[in-house]
Amino acid sequence: MLKLYYHPATISLAVQIALEDAGATSESEFVDFRTNAQRAPDFLAINPKSRVPALVTDRGVLTETPAILEFIARTHPAANLAPLDDPFAMAQVNAFNIYLCGTVHVAIAHRYRGYRWADDPDAIKAMAAKSPEVVADCFRVIEDEYFKGPFVMGDAYTICDPYLYVLSGWLDRDGIDRTQFPKVDAHFNMMGARESVKKVRADWGG
Amino acid sequence: MLKLYYHPATISLAVQIALEDAGATSESEFVDFRTNAQRAPDFLAINPKSRVPALVTDRGVLTETPAILEFIARTHPAANLAPLDDPFAMAQVNAFNIYLCGTVHVAIAHRYRGYRWADDPDAIKAMAAKSPEVVADCFRVIEDEYFKGPFVMGDAYTICDPYLYVLSGWLDRDGIDRTQFPKVDAHFNMMGARESVKKVRADWGG
Repeated sequence: MLKLYYHPATISLAVQIALEDAGATSESEFVDFRTNAQRAPDFLAINPKSRVPALVTDRGVLTETPAILEFIARTHPAANLAPLDDPFAMAQVNAFNIYLCGTVHVAIAHRYRGYRWADDPDAIKAMAAKSPEVVADCFRVIEDEYFKGPFVMGDAYTICDPYLYVLSGWLDRDGIDRTQFPKVDAHFNMMGARESVKKVRADWGG
Repeated sequence: MLKLYYHPATISLAVQIALEDAGATSESEFVDFRTNAQRAPDFLAINPKSRVPALVTDRGVLTETPAILEFIARTHPAANLAPLDDPFAMAQVNAFNIYLCGTVHVAIAHRYRGYRWADDPDAIKAMAAKSPEVVADCFRVIEDEYFKGPFVMGDAYTICDPYLYVLSGWLDRDGIDRTQFPKVDAHFNMMGARESVKKVRADWGG
C-alpha cells in the first residue's frame, strides 16, 4: 500500500492527481506546515529533506516529484501515463518535469522561501521582487518551446500534465497573467475539468 | 550518433563520464561561456534554456542532466548503469540525481549566478555568502541519509556516481572541506582513479 505525505498547497498535489489517474490504491497523510510538521522528528524520519511529497512504498520512501511521478507511471502501466518503452520520449517527459522541479519551482520558491538562500532580509525581499519575472520567463520557454498541445507532450496525457497544471495554478497568486501564455492557459482550464483533478480537489475541499 | 554540447567546468562533465562508462559512440562540442556562446542564437536553437549539457540524438535534443543520464543508461543496458527493470530502485536513483539537480546544484549556483534570482548587487552578495553553508547542509544530508557506499547506491555503480563526483569536486573551490563528509570524500577519491573519469579528464586536459 502506498502512502503519500502531502499538503494540497504544495507540489504534492501533482502526485495526488497522478495517483488518481493511475487508479492507484493509496492512503495519504496531511503534513501541517502551519505547525512546522515538516520539520518534526517523525516526519524527518520519513524525509530528511523536510519536504512533501514523500511517497512511502513497501520497499521504502521515495522523494522528488519527477522521480515519484515516473515511479507511479512505471508501476501502473495500464494507465498509460508515460511512454514507458521509449527511452527518448521518456527522457523528454522527465526533462520537462525536471525543468519544472529544478528551475520553475525553484524560481517560484524565491518569492516565498528566500530564507533558504540568504539571511539578509533585504536580499530576501529582492528575491521575492524578481521572482515573478523569472517565473514568467520560464513559462515563456514552456509556451514557445516545449508545450506541444493539447497535452504537454502532444496528444497523449502524461505525468507532465498534472505537474504543469499545479504550477500554472500558482501564477495568479504571484500576479502573473496566465492568459499571456495561451497554450498553457488552455491546458490549465482543460485540466481543471478533468475527473481526476476534480476528485482530488473535492477530497480536500480546494 | 549522439552529440554532446558541453563545458568541462559544468555539470556536463557528469554526462561525459556516463557516456564513457556506457561505451557510447558520441561526439562533443565545446560551448565557450567566455564568449557567451550559450546565449548565441545557434546554441539557443539547440537548447532554448541556454544551458549545458544538451545531448543531440537522432530524434531530437535532450536536456536536464538527470533525464540525460537515465536516457544513456536505458539506451546502453549492457553497461549496467542503473537498475533499469526495477521501478523502485530506479526511482531512488532518479530521486538522488534530481536532488543534486534541483537542490544541491541550485544551492551552488547561488554563489556564482545569483543574478538569476535578484537584481540588487547586495542581494547577490548575500546569496553568495550563504551558499557554502547551504551546500554543506546538502552534503550532510547526502553523507548521513542517502549515500550507501562504496558507490552512491551501494555495491553497484550507477548514473548517480558521476553526478555526485562532479559536485563533490566543486566543494574545495567554495571553501567547503570535503573530509567532513568521509563517505563522500572516499567516493570522490575512488572515482578519480576510475578509468572512464581519467579518460574524460585527459581528453580536456583537466
